[in-house]
Parts: sequence; structure tokens; C-alpha cells
Amino acid sequence: MRIRRTDGKAEIVLDNPGRRNAISAGMWEELRSFADSAQADATLRTLVIRGEGSVFSAGADIAGFDSARKRSDAQSYDDLVESTLRALEQLPQVVIAAISGPCVGAGASLACACDIRVAERESFFAVPAARLGLGYDPRGISRFVRIFGKGATSEMLLLAARMAGPRAFELGAIHRLVAPGASATCANTLAELASSLAPLTQRAAKASIQEHANGTGISSAVLELAARADASLDYEEGRAAFAQKRPPIFRGR
Amino acid sequence: MRIRRTDGKAEIVLDNPGRRNAISAGMWEELRSFADSAQADATLRTLVIRGEGSVFSAGADIAGFDSARKRSDAQSYDDLVESTLRALEQLPQVVIAAISGPCVGAGASLACACDIRVAERESFFAVPAARLGLGYDPRGISRFVRIFGKGATSEMLLLAARMAGPRAFELGAIHRLVAPGASATCANTLAELASSLAPLTQRAAKASIQEHANGTGISSAVLELAARADASLDYEEGRAAFAQKRPPIFRGR
Amino acid sequence: MRIRRTDGKAEIVLDNPGRRNAISAGMWEELRSFADSAQADATLRTLVIRGEGSVFSAGADIAGFDSARKRSDAQSYDDLVESTLRALEQLPQVVIAAISGPCVGAGASLACACDIRVAERESFFAVPAARLGLGYDPRGISRFVRIFGKGATSEMLLLAARMAGPRAFELGAIHRLVAPGASATCANTLAELASSLAPLTQRAAKASIQEHANGTGISSAVLELAARADASLDYEEGRAAFAQKRPPIFRGR
Repeated sequence: MRIRRTDGKAEIVLDNPGRRNAISAGMWEELRSFADSAQADATLRTLVIRGEGSVFSAGADIAGFDSARKRSDAQSYDDLVESTLRALEQLPQVVIAAISGPCVGAGASLACACDIRVAERESFFAVPAARLGLGYDPRGISRFVRIFGKGATSEMLLLAARMAGPRAFELGAIHRLVAPGASATCANTLAELASSLAPLTQRAAKASIQEHANGTGISSAVLELAARADASLDYEEGRAAFAQKRPPIFRGR
Repeated sequence: MRIRRTDGKAEIVLDNPGRRNAISAGMWEELRSFADSAQADATLRTLVIRGEGSVFSAGADIAGFDSARKRSDAQSYDDLVESTLRALEQLPQVVIAAISGPCVGAGASLACACDIRVAERESFFAVPAARLGLGYDPRGISRFVRIFGKGATSEMLLLAARMAGPRAFELGAIHRLVAPGASATCANTLAELASSLAPLTQRAAKASIQEHANGTGISSAVLELAARADASLDYEEGRAAFAQKRPPIFRGR
Repeated sequence: MRIRRTDGKAEIVLDNPGRRNAISAGMWEELRSFADSAQADATLRTLVIRGEGSVFSAGADIAGFDSARKRSDAQSYDDLVESTLRALEQLPQVVIAAISGPCVGAGASLACACDIRVAERESFFAVPAARLGLGYDPRGISRFVRIFGKGATSEMLLLAARMAGPRAFELGAIHRLVAPGASATCANTLAELASSLAPLTQRAAKASIQEHANGTGISSAVLELAARADASLDYEEGRAAFAQKRPPIFRGR
């Protein structure tokens, strides 16, 4: 995995070309560690996650425990995936997936933990667990239901069916459907847009959306994030810029 | 705001032309007061809400506290909006939004609190909070997730992206997509249809749908509303009319 | 109703031609009884449910208590419907609906309790309760919201509007939209596909999807089903077959 930080953006590239960008435990740990460091980094505004070449990710790279897979291995891999995805979902930054080609299994789970998904017309989502016989993590299945809906998730899991990019777009599971090769550019454009907007508003809204999706009601922590944006200097700047017909400059306070 | 009552229908027109039908605290209070009076009014069957001219609403009209906005102002405005929207959602009547042009911020929240949304092809939804720096009410964000889904809500809030009428239709967030200028006529036609149907069935179904959306399970109050429809004279009338191949005449009892 | 068992598949045909395949209490009891027997039948892999002729089902056949319908009759019919649908939702098998023509009321509820819906272009869903005056079961309304979303469910219930097959497909409520007359063949093809996949994976995934839809969080029972698949001989077979580039043969253990 390569992580490149430029200005307010982190570009994260799944880079495991011999295995079609399958994600090893080590790669999840690296991603988790980066997410932990990003949590309090106010200068970082967006993350863009993509695969090297024309594949997003073939899923879990379980080479390390493939020959003698134990339940404990599967469980600890699943826990590592889930804790990493939750770390991304709890980041204050906007996280964007740029999806080219296959987006499979744990790779599809990663894409669904992002806030925004840009995908190419020839891309597809798939969860081939039923072709292999493994038990897909129920926490990951819940995430698919939140993004794809109950119907499409049933199709992907019970029939191991591919969900083509255009169909995923129709269902609202992806936000931009672009030409082959154009996902990274589009994701970067959206990242620039996201960086120009008010970070406290985004942070409060993201926390609110995640909380709703989790069905846990509205917590005082989320209300406090919204109140903090309301009381911010950025809100004063936003109104002043609007009145003066100029672009606002937000500072996250 | 203008409210005109004709037969079983109330037509509510957001009318603040100098401010593109932005909704002031006074307008919310008027709407809330009307909703309170409608709650027990069995002769009222439908509400149709639209904007004057070719805009639904530009959002909150915060002119009254714009120069010295305090957290308490923002909070009390948000509470007023939310209590009004919940009053609409808890009405026994069918509430229909006719959407022309921009449907923005608190205006989009109002549209999402209606049962049925008719929108013109050139209309769009937007929540530009992140352009201004304010903290959008988490209760309103939950409402967007229920109507637009998690993905589209992320796009609208985190990227301040416009959601065009046709895309909103594709996602199921609006029910009829019509030609420019045709939303009010279509909404009135649907209101007439709604008025011809059994009010106790609609009331029970609306309460059930709202309750499901709130994730609170099925209450005895909702079961009682359904049982009341089952035991109604209207149900006898409905079956008799069906057997006699004539239109039923429902009386709400 | 006809139930025909061939190899790993059960074909269930709603067959009440004089009443457009309306479903009587006796038919629900038969279906419930079959579902109960299927629960522990590891040799049964899929159920395909369709209507005889070119109609799925006109809804509830309440001929038996039509002339003197009592609340207790309505309630016990509703309870029978709901317990049957839950039995289908809790089956380990993949349940597929093949929908031709009208799919109405309790028939639409039945279709929504299936995992996969194949529908013909001319088919439609409708819940005409508001034309008759009855109180539609809130548990059934929740099921519609899970499959059709809040918006479309409001339209079907409050306006008694027909939801055409192509629109239901656009909203993700059906999985395959096929030519007139082609739904049974398509459903059988999907059933064959489902039968070739790993049953323990499907069982765990189905339980997980149902549980998420019910908003009850992730239970230890669902986690155990996933762990059981992870620890299965089928998973060893799946990986071996993948490595050997041959189709796997799953045995459900």
C-alpha cells in the first residue's frame, strides 16, 4: 500500500499487483494506523482510496493463513477489517473511493465504508463468499445493506452475483459513474471541492449520517458537533463571504 | 405564507418572493399552528404545499437573527422547524409537496416531511450548509437519509452537491417527475385521488410508515389505528361498493 | 396450491384460478406447514414461488369471512400471513418469487418475504387497502418499507398506486426484469445457480440480512452461523476447487 500526502489530501493506493490488489492483514494494519493518525489532523481534509492499475481490489489476501486457516485466523482478520472500516467511518475527513474494475469482497466492504464512491462504467461489485464457502462477516453485510439496500445485498450474497457499476449507480450505491480510466481524476476533483467547504459542517454531518445508519438514534456527541459548527468562526466567514459574493476561506474553527 | 382551504383540501403556499420563498420563524409558526388545528379536523383530507412562482424554497430565512446569530437562536429555529415537520408527519391527512425549481436547506427538509413529492424536471434539492459553515440539524439529516438513502445524503451534505429532480426520482425520493410548471396541477390531481380513498386506512398506514422510518418498532397505537380501520363502516362500504362495481363513498368512520 | 419437489428445489404454485390466485387461510396454512418442514431439510436448497397462469396473486382470499368479517377474523388472518412470511424469511434456503402480472396486497407481502424477486415487464405491485377501507397489517407495511423504501411505500399505501415492474426494478425492489412469460424460467435458472453455491454461507448471510432489516443488531446466533461456515468442510472444498480451477461441490457441512 502506498500513502501519499499532498497538502490537505491523502492518496491511498492499494498496491498488491501480483494479487490484484488483494488486501493483506499488514495492509489493513497500515490503513488502520494511518486512520488513527488522521483522526486529530486538522490539516488533512480528504482521503482518496484507489487501486493500482485497473482493479480496485480482489478482496482479502489470506495467503498468510490460507493453508491452515483456523477460525481464530478468520475471526481476527474480520476484526481487523471491521475496526479499520469503523476508523474510516469515524474520521472527520471526507473519504472518497475511486473504483476501477473489480471491487470484490473485503474490497467492496472498504468501498462501502467511504463517504463517496466514484466508479467506472466497467467496474463491478461482488462478494463471492458463497462460491468459496466462507461466512461473510455480518458486520460487513450490514454495511452492504446500508449502501446497496436489502434487495441488492441479498442478490450479491445469496447468488454471489456481480453488481455492475451502472446498476450500482441506479441504486444510489455510487455517486458518480465515469468513463473507463476516469475515476481517479473525478475523485480528485471531488476531493478538491470537499476541501473548499467547511470542515466542521462536514464533520458534524458525517457523524450524524453514520449514527443514523447505525440505528442508534441521535447522541449528544453529534448534537454537540452540530452546535460547534453553528458557533464557529467559519460560519461567520461563510455568511460574510456570501454577502460579499466571494469564496469563503474556512479554517475549521 | 398563504393557506387556502377548499373543500377537503388545504393549499399552503410559501410566499416570500423577495427572498425566494425562504422560510422565516414566523412562517414556521404559522405552519405549525395550522398543522395543530388540522390534527383533529376530519373534514380535511389533504394538504398541498408549494412555493409561489417557480421556486419551492431557498431554505431558512434567518434575516431576523442574521447579524448577531447566537447558538440559542440557531437552536430555537431548528427546534421550531423540527417540531413543525413532526407535526406534519403525524397528521392523519396525506401531505403532498409540489416542487418547482430550487428546494434548498430547510425547504428540502420540509419537502422530505411530506408523504408524496411531485417535482418538475428542472427542480433540484440542495443542502448548502457546508458552503456556509453551519451545523445542519442532525434530526433533519436523519430525515434525508430516510428519503434519499445514505449515499445521496452523504453527497448532499459533505459535498454540498445539488441533487437534480431526475436523479431524485431515480432514487425514489420523489414520486412523480413532471414538466416545468406542471407540479401544482399534478399534486392537485393526486390530492383528489387521495381524497377519494379511505381516510382510516391512510391514517393507519401513514402512522405505520412513519413509525418504521423512526426505527421504533410497531406500537400498540399503530396496531389500534389499523384495527380501527378494519372495524370501520368504511370497510363495509368499500366491500359493498366493490361488489356492486361502483365507487365507494368513505366517511372516515 | 401445488407444491412440487424435484431434487433440491421446491416449486410452489399459487393456484386459485377462479379468484386470480387469491390466497385463502387454507393456502397460508399449507405454505406455513411446508416452510416448517423445510427448516431442517438440508437436501432442499431453493424454493420458487409463482402464480398459476399470468397472475402472481390478487391478494387475500377472504371469501370465508367476507360476509361477516369480524375484527378477530381479520386479526387471525393477518397473524397467519405474518407467521408464514416470517417462517419463509427464517428458512436456510434461498426463496425466489417469479412474478407475472398483478402482485397485490397479501400477494405483494408474500413476494417481499422472498429473498429474490424476478418480475415480468408487465407485472405490477399494488396494495389497494385504501380503496377498500381495511387497515393493512403494520408488520406488512414495515416489510414494504424494507424492500421498496419509505417513499414508494407511501405512494402504494396512501394513494393505492400501482408500482409497475420497471419502476420496482429501478428502485431495487426486484432483481431481474424479464419479458412477459419469462419469469418462471429465469427464476429456475437462478435457483439452479443458488443450488450450486455454499449453503452454509447462504444461510448465515440470509440470517444476517434479515436481522439487519429488522433493526435488531447482530445476534450471537448470526455470528455463530458465520463462524460455522468459516469452519466448514465446504470452505476447504471451495478453496481447493478454486486452486484446482474446477467447480466446487458443496455438501452443507
